[in-house]
Amino acid sequence: MKKIQAGVVGATGYAGAELVRILLGHPQAEVAALSSVSFTGQKLSDVYPAYYGLCDQVCGTQEEVVEQSDVVFAALPHGLSQDLAAQCHAAGKAFIDLGADFRLKDEAVYRKWYGGEFRFPALHEQAVYGLPELFREEIRGKKLIANPGCYTTAVPLALAPAVRAGFVSTQGIIADCKSGVTGAGRKMTQNTHYPELNEGFSAYKVAAHRHTPEMEQTLSRLAGEAVRLTFVPHLLPVNRGILATCYARLAPGADPQAVRAAYEEAYRDEYFVRLLPEGRVADIKQVRYTNFCDISLHFDRETGTLIAISAIDNMGKGAAGQAVQNMNLAFGLEEQAGLRLVPPAF
Amino acid sequence: MKKIQAGVVGATGYAGAELVRILLGHPQAEVAALSSVSFTGQKLSDVYPAYYGLCDQVCGTQEEVVEQSDVVFAALPHGLSQDLAAQCHAAGKAFIDLGADFRLKDEAVYRKWYGGEFRFPALHEQAVYGLPELFREEIRGKKLIANPGCYTTAVPLALAPAVRAGFVSTQGIIADCKSGVTGAGRKMTQNTHYPELNEGFSAYKVAAHRHTPEMEQTLSRLAGEAVRLTFVPHLLPVNRGILATCYARLAPGADPQAVRAAYEEAYRDEYFVRLLPEGRVADIKQVRYTNFCDISLHFDRETGTLIAISAIDNMGKGAAGQAVQNMNLAFGLEEQAGLRLVPPAF
Amino acid sequence: MKKIQAGVVGATGYAGAELVRILLGHPQAEVAALSSVSFTGQKLSDVYPAYYGLCDQVCGTQEEVVEQSDVVFAALPHGLSQDLAAQCHAAGKAFIDLGADFRLKDEAVYRKWYGGEFRFPALHEQAVYGLPELFREEIRGKKLIANPGCYTTAVPLALAPAVRAGFVSTQGIIADCKSGVTGAGRKMTQNTHYPELNEGFSAYKVAAHRHTPEMEQTLSRLAGEAVRLTFVPHLLPVNRGILATCYARLAPGADPQAVRAAYEEAYRDEYFVRLLPEGRVADIKQVRYTNFCDISLHFDRETGTLIAISAIDNMGKGAAGQAVQNMNLAFGLEEQAGLRLVPPAF
Amino acid sequence: MKKIQAGVVGATGYAGAELVRILLGHPQAEVAALSSVSFTGQKLSDVYPAYYGLCDQVCGTQEEVVEQSDVVFAALPHGLSQDLAAQCHAAGKAFIDLGADFRLKDEAVYRKWYGGEFRFPALHEQAVYGLPELFREEIRGKKLIANPGCYTTAVPLALAPAVRAGFVSTQGIIADCKSGVTGAGRKMTQNTHYPELNEGFSAYKVAAHRHTPEMEQTLSRLAGEAVRLTFVPHLLPVNRGILATCYARLAPGADPQAVRAAYEEAYRDEYFVRLLPEGRVADIKQVRYTNFCDISLHFDRETGTLIAISAIDNMGKGAAGQAVQNMNLAFGLEEQAGLRLVPPAF
Repeated sequence: MKKIQAGVVGATGYAGAELVRILLGHPQAEVAALSSVSFTGQKLSDVYPAYYGLCDQVCGTQEEVVEQSDVVFAALPHGLSQDLAAQCHAAGKAFIDLGADFRLKDEAVYRKWYGGEFRFPALHEQAVYGLPELFREEIRGKKLIANPGCYTTAVPLALAPAVRAGFVSTQGIIADCKSGVTGAGRKMTQNTHYPELNEGFSAYKVAAHRHTPEMEQTLSRLAGEAVRLTFVPHLLPVNRGILATCYARLAPGADPQAVRAAYEEAYRDEYFVRLLPEGRVADIKQVRYTNFCDISLHFDRETGTLIAISAIDNMGKGAAGQAVQNMNLAFGLEEQAGLRLVPPAF
Repeated sequence: MKKIQAGVVGATGYAGAELVRILLGHPQAEVAALSSVSFTGQKLSDVYPAYYGLCDQVCGTQEEVVEQSDVVFAALPHGLSQDLAAQCHAAGKAFIDLGADFRLKDEAVYRKWYGGEFRFPALHEQAVYGLPELFREEIRGKKLIANPGCYTTAVPLALAPAVRAGFVSTQGIIADCKSGVTGAGRKMTQNTHYPELNEGFSAYKVAAHRHTPEMEQTLSRLAGEAVRLTFVPHLLPVNRGILATCYARLAPGADPQAVRAAYEEAYRDEYFVRLLPEGRVADIKQVRYTNFCDISLHFDRETGTLIAISAIDNMGKGAAGQAVQNMNLAFGLEEQAGLRLVPPAF
Repeated sequence: MKKIQAGVVGATGYAGAELVRILLGHPQAEVAALSSVSFTGQKLSDVYPAYYGLCDQVCGTQEEVVEQSDVVFAALPHGLSQDLAAQCHAAGKAFIDLGADFRLKDEAVYRKWYGGEFRFPALHEQAVYGLPELFREEIRGKKLIANPGCYTTAVPLALAPAVRAGFVSTQGIIADCKSGVTGAGRKMTQNTHYPELNEGFSAYKVAAHRHTPEMEQTLSRLAGEAVRLTFVPHLLPVNRGILATCYARLAPGADPQAVRAAYEEAYRDEYFVRLLPEGRVADIKQVRYTNFCDISLHFDRETGTLIAISAIDNMGKGAAGQAVQNMNLAFGLEEQAGLRLVPPAF
Repeated sequence: MKKIQAGVVGATGYAGAELVRILLGHPQAEVAALSSVSFTGQKLSDVYPAYYGLCDQVCGTQEEVVEQSDVVFAALPHGLSQDLAAQCHAAGKAFIDLGADFRLKDEAVYRKWYGGEFRFPALHEQAVYGLPELFREEIRGKKLIANPGCYTTAVPLALAPAVRAGFVSTQGIIADCKSGVTGAGRKMTQNTHYPELNEGFSAYKVAAHRHTPEMEQTLSRLAGEAVRLTFVPHLLPVNRGILATCYARLAPGADPQAVRAAYEEAYRDEYFVRLLPEGRVADIKQVRYTNFCDISLHFDRETGTLIAISAIDNMGKGAAGQAVQNMNLAFGLEEQAGLRLVPPAF
């Protein structure tokens, strides 16, 4: 059977490069074409020497990628995906967007946080939100998928079963998140210059991060009412991983055992969600280089608080891994194809 | 003038070693004697080669330290300080305890979290809690000082002005804290073995850490009512620092400008507290190797939440630095003596 | 076709755990049985939570492993493999030893550096040295393979083509090597306690490391004369990788272009050796989690020195990866089976 | 007594910022003025938040620094110090150059490696090379001092006693050096972007680094004959430190005990050189944030090789610390003034 021809627009960014790494090991897909604005004409392995001899493909144009691919993944700065989505649509190609352009359903919210507008309302209508563990059936067979961001995968997965069942108050939810540095991208900044980040740790965009409305959108949908949350991201001096420590007040009568049971029920058949046994604590270390989301549950009985902690690889389940999972769903493949990766123990 | 003779019991643990480093640079104190159970008879510089040629003193017994010192610092596992305090008391020596034995005022609470009892109630009566920015006047001239722990310095300093003024609800306070590895001590454990911690990050003792009642004691005293908080510590793959991200609901009518003004008023004359200007975010990197506590204030106006972030060096303001600050107060020295340290920029 | 049943003795050490990770992705082998002295009766995923849900096999005894396996991998402290080899031999099982017991051909040398003796001379006769790029034909189909150590893979691969062709003097060769921390194993030591290693870097066992005679054995065999080298290992604050910076004096008339041509010829068909183009420098980062050995060549024309730098993952090509490569050769499988791993770019 | 007014040109680079940190603690000097091309008009503490409240001085122009200072330190890219030196000379100010412009005595060598020329030959005549442990008497009272680079401090100090005494061959010396990232400066580059350096390690400018002729100049002077060495620098994923592992062939009859005795004799009275006892190995960790140079000696008796290892803080003894040591000598102060810093143990 002919392999799915996969193309990556923005291949030299971190998410793009990780997509290539996963696709190289996918049994039913192969890398058909790559593009990069900054490195057109260069081999991917010139930019990432780790790939020397393994992916020496030359970066071409966006147009070449659309033409040569069955599915186009885009890892672009926000605002640049809409035209590409239209191109793919016109050419009948599936499109999986790792950027933010199609994630928010409300144009006013998009305008407020990202400053742009919905240029192709019909495409926004078609776009589905690619968080398979929560919205799998909507994704199957679709051709325009908005892949969630990293925080917006980790936080909803940590809270979904409790929010959906009404076990926690929708008021006062706090998501204290910590991200590895790759989440900030390949672009150099002074605060990600090695000597300035190393041995440091701080929050950033405190209660002002663009992922906030996206999480609220997902949680509100699950809760059936408007959810507002307080979201504080921090930058960790590690390469990969997001740890989301989520706090929610238990609703009156919500029993820890019942809450745990709801999580077990929700995630029993989810290959990529590992609900950890009691006594274990989720750690970003244990999911690196994979598409897993580890979740541990804790209760502060004194204050009646659920503490749900999730750990993902921000480049895996938080970006490229989930994008491939969505491709698998879109093309009717086994959902785990190419993603049965074992996290290194060290 | 004769220098104060300072002794350190438990000198080969991390807090003890850091005390020695600070004392070596103190203009009015000098290291008189050291003791260590594990390394009796060995030079401190055999254990810490950084000190080679600078502190080659040999570790003796606890008794020798008491005899040769004007002030005895103890960096011991909990439960072992009470006898030493009694010895110091009998010998008329000042005693500054970096352990937990004299921090909690309520014996029942101590018993619940630490499993021991108050063996010398009269000493517990005398002991003062050594957090100078909050209780300075109680410390001056005293001879038995309970030096707070690291989290229990960072969290109360972050919240004190708001709690004292009633600007936040005393219910639902959350302290999401992240600590450098030295906080776990010099004793080897599998999870602090380099390859297992490196590139990892997780919470531990979730809502079950012994520092919880100590923070609640301090905050309750400031609030004038019982405060319960949810405390989740995490272990950072860096050597030093504590970042405390504290969340509290703003009381009705509490205006962000008024809250900030209360902090400015509270910390205006505090050399060791640096209230950062708006737009800055506290970072553990900026306080390393010093006694500073940096604080930044943030407000989530959508949810009415104060987010107060403090950063200290867990070995500095969180242990040895603060102990020296307490010594200075106890002996009537300038409070900053030996502590005018400039944090390295990188 | 029935998969090869692979067993791992010493599965809870780092090399053992990495073997399991590789075997879990091997298309023609599967993990049949594990053993561990320290963790008998526990699941491997209890020791390494990364493997939760992926390898929850319980560690049994060495005897069980021999019984249930077609091939037994041993990752044991030196001295413990000889009995196990005899057991495997008696049971007709293939045996691949990641320890040192069968690597040295000269018993006197073994005794000098390791302190033991050759207890089964006949087995030592049969044992082949498992460095496929240099001795492939000897390994095919064999049942007792001594897998080289990490330094002893990196250094000979860096120097082999030059030494074999006589392009460098066999006198005065220097191997200045730097190893990631996993090379020191899972056993806790003070100098691999996170706060003491982090931000540090030093040499150890200077000109006194046990791998020295093993490298000399390999290089002497290639040179056809006795080679002595000066070997200084250093410990890097990273998890994985060995960088070997090797210095050798160019023989009179040895031209850099000719030397490079010899390397190209030697490694042209070697999948796992990536001879880097001129201008590139080998970096441990680019081979992590794989079985690759990257080599870059440099010349100091002023002093007539060849500088050959090789980079491997000490747990991959330096241990578990090479062991699987040897298994593939021993069992007549495709040599790259299970080892077509793409190093992550970050 | 009026303090020495010290000015820093290029204060916002790493060496400049470290100079400020040291000067802030100097008992007989104070920071008079700062300049920075990139940050004119900004406070130093805006660039380095660690200095908030401690050095909020505004960066002005180079001219202002010259005018307001008794001594001008320059931390500038090569080629820019010559004019400044002339300005200082004209104004009668002392000048200590942390750049390369005045280090090399031979203009042809300077031109070859740096591409420029000696514009003020008279100044080059006056300039002294500021490596006090080797050339102290030349530095006292001088007004134009070329502060050595980091590698060029570590390597000569490691080899000087052996070279001077003729205990080693001047042929075939190898310096395999490893530097912390601050050595690459504050300027962002892709290879010092956190995710790309972290967990990586490689050599750079192999046998082609500009510090080579500077080391050769120093060693040749000590040897009394032309010395050529092979120098390979590597980049370590740590912030600070240089470890120089130096290999030299022992001359016939050179006895390890005699060699060690020569080192003891040479460094007995040197406060900043710590010759470690036998059995210890120099480690960059133990000299961080100080002006120390630790040296350990090792011998490969099989191959007749001296292995001398030195460790410095590249920003301390390798730049700013040594510059202050030179200032002390130039101004007749106690040589250790402001530099009695205790390296943190962790």
